[in-house]
Order: sequence, then C-alpha cells, then structure tokens
Amino acid sequence: CIMSIDCIRSIRERVPPLLTDLYQFTMAYAYWRAGRHEEHAVFELFFRDNPFGGGFSLFAGVHDCLLFLRNFRFADEDVEFLRSVMPPDTDPAFFQFLRCLDCSGVTLHSVPEGTVVFARVPLMEVAGPLPVVQLLETSLLCLVNYASLVCTNAARFRLAAGPKRKLLEMGLRRAQGPDGGLTASRYTHIGGFDLTSNVQAGFLFGIPVAGTMAHSYVTSFTSLEEVWPQTLSAVNGDHNLVDIISLTKGWLSRVCELLGAEPGKIHEGELAAFLSYAIAYPQNFLPVIDSYSVGCSGLLNFCAVALVLCELGYRPVGVRLDSGDLCKQSLDVRRVFRLCSEHFSIPAFDSLIIVGTNNISEESLAELNSKENEISVVGVGTHLVTCTKQPSLGCVYKLVEVRGRPRMKVSEDPEKSTVPGRKAVYRLIDVTQPLCSAAETRAKVQSSLQTLHPRHKRLQKPDSYTVSLSTSCTECNSTDQLSPSLRCRN
Amino acid sequence: CIMSIDCIRSIRERVPPLLTDLYQFTMAYAYWRAGRHEEHAVFELFFRDNPFGGGFSLFAGVHDCLLFLRNFRFADEDVEFLRSVMPPDTDPAFFQFLRCLDCSGVTLHSVPEGTVVFARVPLMEVAGPLPVVQLLETSLLCLVNYASLVCTNAARFRLAAGPKRKLLEMGLRRAQGPDGGLTASRYTHIGGFDLTSNVQAGFLFGIPVAGTMAHSYVTSFTSLEEVWPQTLSAVNGDHNLVDIISLTKGWLSRVCELLGAEPGKIHEGELAAFLSYAIAYPQNFLPVIDSYSVGCSGLLNFCAVALVLCELGYRPVGVRLDSGDLCKQSLDVRRVFRLCSEHFSIPAFDSLIIVGTNNISEESLAELNSKENEISVVGVGTHLVTCTKQPSLGCVYKLVEVRGRPRMKVSEDPEKSTVPGRKAVYRLIDVTQPLCSAAETRAKVQSSLQTLHPRHKRLQKPDSYTVSLSTSCTECNSTDQLSPSLRCRN
Repeated sequence: CIMSIDCIRSIRERVPPLLTDLYQFTMAYAYWRAGRHEEHAVFELFFRDNPFGGGFSLFAGVHDCLLFLRNFRFADEDVEFLRSVMPPDTDPAFFQFLRCLDCSGVTLHSVPEGTVVFARVPLMEVAGPLPVVQLLETSLLCLVNYASLVCTNAARFRLAAGPKRKLLEMGLRRAQGPDGGLTASRYTHIGGFDLTSNVQAGFLFGIPVAGTMAHSYVTSFTSLEEVWPQTLSAVNGDHNLVDIISLTKGWLSRVCELLGAEPGKIHEGELAAFLSYAIAYPQNFLPVIDSYSVGCSGLLNFCAVALVLCELGYRPVGVRLDSGDLCKQSLDVRRVFRLCSEHFSIPAFDSLIIVGTNNISEESLAELNSKENEISVVGVGTHLVTCTKQPSLGCVYKLVEVRGRPRMKVSEDPEKSTVPGRKAVYRLIDVTQPLCSAAETRAKVQSSLQTLHPRHKRLQKPDSYTVSLSTSCTECNSTDQLSPSLRCRN
Repeated sequence: CIMSIDCIRSIRERVPPLLTDLYQFTMAYAYWRAGRHEEHAVFELFFRDNPFGGGFSLFAGVHDCLLFLRNFRFADEDVEFLRSVMPPDTDPAFFQFLRCLDCSGVTLHSVPEGTVVFARVPLMEVAGPLPVVQLLETSLLCLVNYASLVCTNAARFRLAAGPKRKLLEMGLRRAQGPDGGLTASRYTHIGGFDLTSNVQAGFLFGIPVAGTMAHSYVTSFTSLEEVWPQTLSAVNGDHNLVDIISLTKGWLSRVCELLGAEPGKIHEGELAAFLSYAIAYPQNFLPVIDSYSVGCSGLLNFCAVALVLCELGYRPVGVRLDSGDLCKQSLDVRRVFRLCSEHFSIPAFDSLIIVGTNNISEESLAELNSKENEISVVGVGTHLVTCTKQPSLGCVYKLVEVRGRPRMKVSEDPEKSTVPGRKAVYRLIDVTQPLCSAAETRAKVQSSLQTLHPRHKRLQKPDSYTVSLSTSCTECNSTDQLSPSLRCRN
C-alpha cells in the first residue's frame, strides 16, 4: 500500500512546517495581531492552463497533502528560528499561538488523486482559520504542482507510446535531487509507466523495479580469463558443471559463420562481460549491446551467450539498445534473432525482447509508435522527469471567501484575476474516500482518461474541453455579491 | 555553518542507499559473483556540454556527496527489500556482503564546491572497490546534477541582473517537490542570490529570508472597521496612542489631492490591509500594491499609510509590484515617491525600495538591466528553480580504469565515447579542504567567476573556453595504452 509507515514517518522530514515562504508567517502574525486568527476562510487551488499545450491534466499529490495536514505541527526549534527572523517587536504571545497550532480545524475538499482535470477548475478547497489555511499555501502547492505535472507528462508519454509497449522510468539521476527523483518515480507510475529503475521507489511505493547493466559493466572486462566461475550447470537439475568458455566459443563461431561476421572485430571483454553476467543471472540475461558496436560485436556476443543459456535450458530475456537509430537497429536485431531461431531451431529466440533507451522524448516515442520497429520496452529519463517541454505547472492558491463573504483579486494583468466565492465542481466528491495504493490510483488514472474524448487527448492542438460557469447562482449569507458555482461538463 | 547537525542527520533520510537504479545492484552482484569485488576501479564524473548554451558552469553538490559517502550503509530492511527484487537464485552470501559494505575504501577527488568548470573536464574522481564505486553512481549524479544546474542558472541570473540589484529566490512552490525546493534555495544562494523566501532553507543553511505579504492578505480585508488595534504609539518612546484611522484618512486625502486622484476609486479593503500590516510591522512595511490597481488604489494607499508611519517616526521600507510592465510602473511609483518627499518634506520617501516579481526570466532580468527602471530587488521563482531554458544537466559517471588499466566506451554515437584512463585536472586540488559554509562557497563562486574572461561569461553565444588534452602522457602500469592527462588552461 502507498500509505506505508515510511511515508507517514517521512512526511515531517520531507515537508517540515517551515518549508514555506516567509510571507506566510508575516501575514499570519498580522492576522493574529488584528484578532482575525479565528475567522473562517476558504482558499481554492487551481491552475490557469493545461501543461504541455495539452487538453487535459491529471491531478496528483493529494495523498501527500493529507499526510502533511495530519502532521502539521511546529517543533520548539521551528518556533525559535521564526522568532529569530521575525522583527524583534513581534508580540511573544504569537509564538505561543504557533506552538499550539495544528490542522484540526481545517477541512480539505479535493478532486481525487489521479483524476483528469482542466484549467481554472478548483481542484482543492481548503477551509479553516484564516492564518492556518494561509500558512499551508506554499507547502500544498509544492506537493501538488510537480506531482500533477509529472503525472500528466507520464500520461502523455503513455498516450504517445500506445497501450502495449512497456514503459520504464529511469530519471533519478536527472531529477531535482533525491526527493524530486522519488516523486517522479511515484507519479509517473501512477500516470501510466509500468516500471522504475529507482529501487527506493520500489521499496516505498511497491512499484515494480527493473534494470540489468550499464556500459561500465561491459567495459570493466577485457578478456575471457576474467570470467569466473567458468562453469554453469543445466537448469534441469543435472548438477554436471559445463565448461562454459568453450561452449560459448563454439556458439560464437557458429553465429559468426551464420551471419558472415568477422570474428576479429569482436570485443573479447564484451563477451566476457556478457558471459559473466549470464552466469550470475542465467534466467535474467538482458545485456546492453552497444558499448562498442551492435553489428560487429554486441549482437554476436549476445547471441552466442544466449544460445549457451538456451542449450542449458535457461531462457535469455533480451537486449538493450542505448544509442543510435533505435528503430532501424531493432529491426536488424530482430532479423538476426529470427535467423538464429530458424537456423539453430531455438524457438526461445522468437520471444526475446528489445529494450530502447536513448534520450527518449514524447516526440521520439510518438515516432516509435508510427515507424516500423521491434522495441517492446522503452526507458525514459530526462524528458520525463524534468518535463522538458514545460518544467512547471502554475498551480495557484487563491482566497475566495472570508467569514462567508466572497473575495476576489482584480489584477493589472487580467489573467491573474480570480473568480470570487466558493464553487461547487460538479464532479467534486463529497464523501470521504479512503487513500488508495499507487496501483489503485494508477488504474483510476487510466479509467479517468477513458472517459475523455480522444479529441481532448490529442498531444498536439487538442480540442479544448469546455469548463463554464453555470448560470444558476447561489446567494451568499452576508452580501449581495454572487458566488457562482463552477460546472464541469463531463 | 552549512554543515549543521540537521544536514548530517537528514542525509540518510534524503539519500538512502536504495535511492539508486536497480542495475547498480544487479551489476554489483555480478561483480561479486565473479570474485571481482575487491578490484580497484576508478570512475570519472563529467558533463558533455555547458548548460543554457553558456560558456561555463558551476560545480555544486560536493558537500552532499561527501555526507552521502560518509553515511553509506545498508539497513536490514534495505537488504531484505533487495533480496525480494533480485532473482531467487541470487547467492545469499551476497546480501551478507551488502550488510557489511561502507565507503571506507572509497577515495573522492573533486573540484571544490562552487568552482567554475567546463564541459568534458573530470569534476570528480571516485576510486575504490569496483562494486562499491559502481553502486554510488546514480546517487552521486542525482546530488550534483541539479545542484550544479541551478547554481549555474543563478550565476547567469546574477550576471544578467548586474552586481547591485538584490536577488530573491522564491521558487519553492514550483520546484520538484520539497527537497527540490530546498536544493534550489541552497544552490541559488551559492550561485549569487541574496535572499530566499524559503524559511526552512534559512533554518538549515543560514540563508537570509525575506517576504512580507501576498494578495490574499490584501483581499481578505473589506473595510477599515476590520483594522485592530486602531491605535499606534510613536517610535520616540512617547506612549500616547494615536488614532491611526483618522490620521490615515487625513493623509490619504492629502495624497489624493497632491496627485489629482479620485478618492472614490480607492479600495477601502486594501487600505485596511495596509494599515493593519503597518500596525503589526511599523518598521517593516512593504506591501504588494497591485491587488486592484497600482495607480488608482494601491500606490495611494501605500503613500497614506507610509506617511502615517513617517509622522510617528517609523521608516517604511517600500512596495512590491507583481504584475504588468514592471519597468514602466516602477518609474511611475518613483515619481510619486519623489513628489511626496518634496511636497510633504519627508526625505524617507527618497529611499523607499521597489521590489519586482512577475514571472522573471533571465531575459527579462537582462532587459531590466538595460531599460530605465527603479526596481532594486527582484524576486525570481519558476524560471530559476525549474531552469526552464534547460531543465537538466547531463552529468555522467564513466569507468576509466580497473586494476590500473584504462577503460573506455566506444559508442555508435561518437558523442557518447569516453576518454580512457585517469586524468589530472591541472586545477584539481590535491589537498584536503574543509567543508565550507554556504556563505563561504557563495563568495568563492564570485571569485571563481572573476577569474573568467567576460567573453566566456556572455549569456548568449559565449566564446568557448579551451579545454584540451595535453601532449605529455603518462605510461600506465600494465598496458601500453596511454592515459593522457587533461589540462584546463586557466
């Protein structure tokens, strides 16, 4: 379950109550000083444009927001630090007020985690004592902005890739630090990725992890003498150890002969690396084959070692391509697999998979989907986790009501004006829902996307989904200003 | 000091040893299985292109890397999780090996934190037992990639802004989650920013924090009746409480008269908000003045309240503009300040500051620097922390030597090939240096940038700084391959 003890334990570490902008505290003090600290206020969280020029977004991060609210409390050292940065004439009683603060008086209404949403729809409504709900702004925005952005990005990659291809997230090294990497793994999985390379994400969130070897493994070997042990027993329980070096040499020369390849161009270190890996993982053999040259060395070495494994009753898994023209190479590789399968009567060679990983973007995925190729698993890093096309989602958190009276902001920049008053989003769920696991939310994302017409899901120039203010308005308690309700036509 | 107890305590939380790609573990097992776990290996960390089309980069994150190495150890639960994801036939003795693993056998040579660096120069050399240094790859890359990128971005913003303007980082809500936000605050300060809005960054790293109020504060008020207390005493120790409402009304009508403004267009709620804030912070009055209209309401309200403060002997600080044409508005605002100063003989109005915050990018900062304006503090969020122009730095970690023998990777993609063998960077510091505070590193960044000719610091189309392989080569121990040393001409 996504809601593991570690998540709860770590939210205080990840999002301490000081992780916010200073002005939240200066405003809180001014509210407190004016005796307004028990006034009831309502904020709405929304964004103004779908990211990536798209027609939809996925809302994510709700789960962490709930944990954050649940654990929101100032430690003594937090309060002492605030005392040191606030003006010296700040009333000491304010710090006592902070010490006793929690979110027990705060109500959060939210669109559920992983729901398809649109621009200008209120996604969260946070209601409670004015200074408390003000203090929450930055932390809530920080928790939903990137989560929603990267989840939406993942859903777009999934749409570009088509439903069948497996998608592996491998962006940890390019993320905004460790927590950015974890957030990326978690929400790209929810957005439609199948696997992650990030072990800690597997540990914390139960996401299936994958990965076999890097080029460094291959280049760390130079000769077959480094292979150890040099024996392997067959899978069928027969404990006779087979001399795997000579077996491999035999298969390699047969492969070279079949393909008309020059044995002199083969890197012995690469062969040693593959063989050594196969001995360690006879049932999980999937090497990267382009450390030197796919055609002259990597593919031949793979075939030789994979044929050895097949002879001993094991099932090699496939290969990874990490450079060059992935489509073209995958066709060449598949052709060689078919040749081997036929020529050596090894049907296992027909089901070998080809993994592609080379700076994959949404565009290159869409190209993969339209061009002939044999790649069944795609690994994506940089463009996925950093959301290169638009690296931020501009969620904002705006005051819409105080003491039952609507509030609005009218800016010099009309885009920045707000719609006053609380809105009812017609799809907004009023009943309390249990927190879901990553897998459950992931399934919800796909079914939520299913409800959306394909014309809104086009990655380029989508039709805009209509979100409109309804004509039926509700009169407010203490003012003649009108609080329109916001309708989403689904 | 940057090296607070909290940093040390939290590194295990932030970067647990499982926060890496699965293939590091599968390779480590294969090395271990082949009896290679005590072989000495050397990796180099470098990037292939300066980010943002620039002529230089700043290297950052070293400090966290050191803390990470120092605390690198597997907990029992980590090892148990690995056992559950590795193939079932993995030798159990490997997990025992992991339990005992630490970085006591690892040597890290690095360019110092905050140094100007260039593409393809080895920035870190990590040497030690092959599986251990392999395991460190992803975590080290994750710690230096974003830190270096955002530090470099900050330095570019600093160059664009000129040396005098104060720069405030305020990107927490747009960062890749909480830790991304903290990393951004820390390394943008090191890169040249003066202030941050992020309170936790102030707490952890000693960065000066700043911030006063958001629009929500302004829109939360509707009438002067909400102002409380309605009195303030003068700064000179005179404890007579002054009726601040009538005092303000008087100043407001004089200001309107002076400027020929219509009192009917003034938002009373905004005036109430400013007054209430001034009562809470008589020495720190700096409101945001564009919640409704700068010219028709915000500026007039500011002047009235600031004149009240001046009359009572306080010193108002200034205003913030958050929308529209910042340059033009700042000139209008300054003109009004000068008029008030002359007309009411209030010299304090000459030193009021104007803060500008409105989706500032490197380009708009450069424009600020070239166009006439009166903005002395600039707040930057999204474009700074997400590094919109290029949201990732492609640092890589490549094997260059095993057992004293050079290693290289020859790729189908020539860009991805590596230079084999260990290199000496001429500027590489061989003596152990103490860890520096954020402030010390920040000063080092500026002096490191000073050594660089302006032509390499141009933000657009900089001259490329020459990094070349020296002709003097060192023969290696056990091979006739040559290990060239890499020279940086400084």
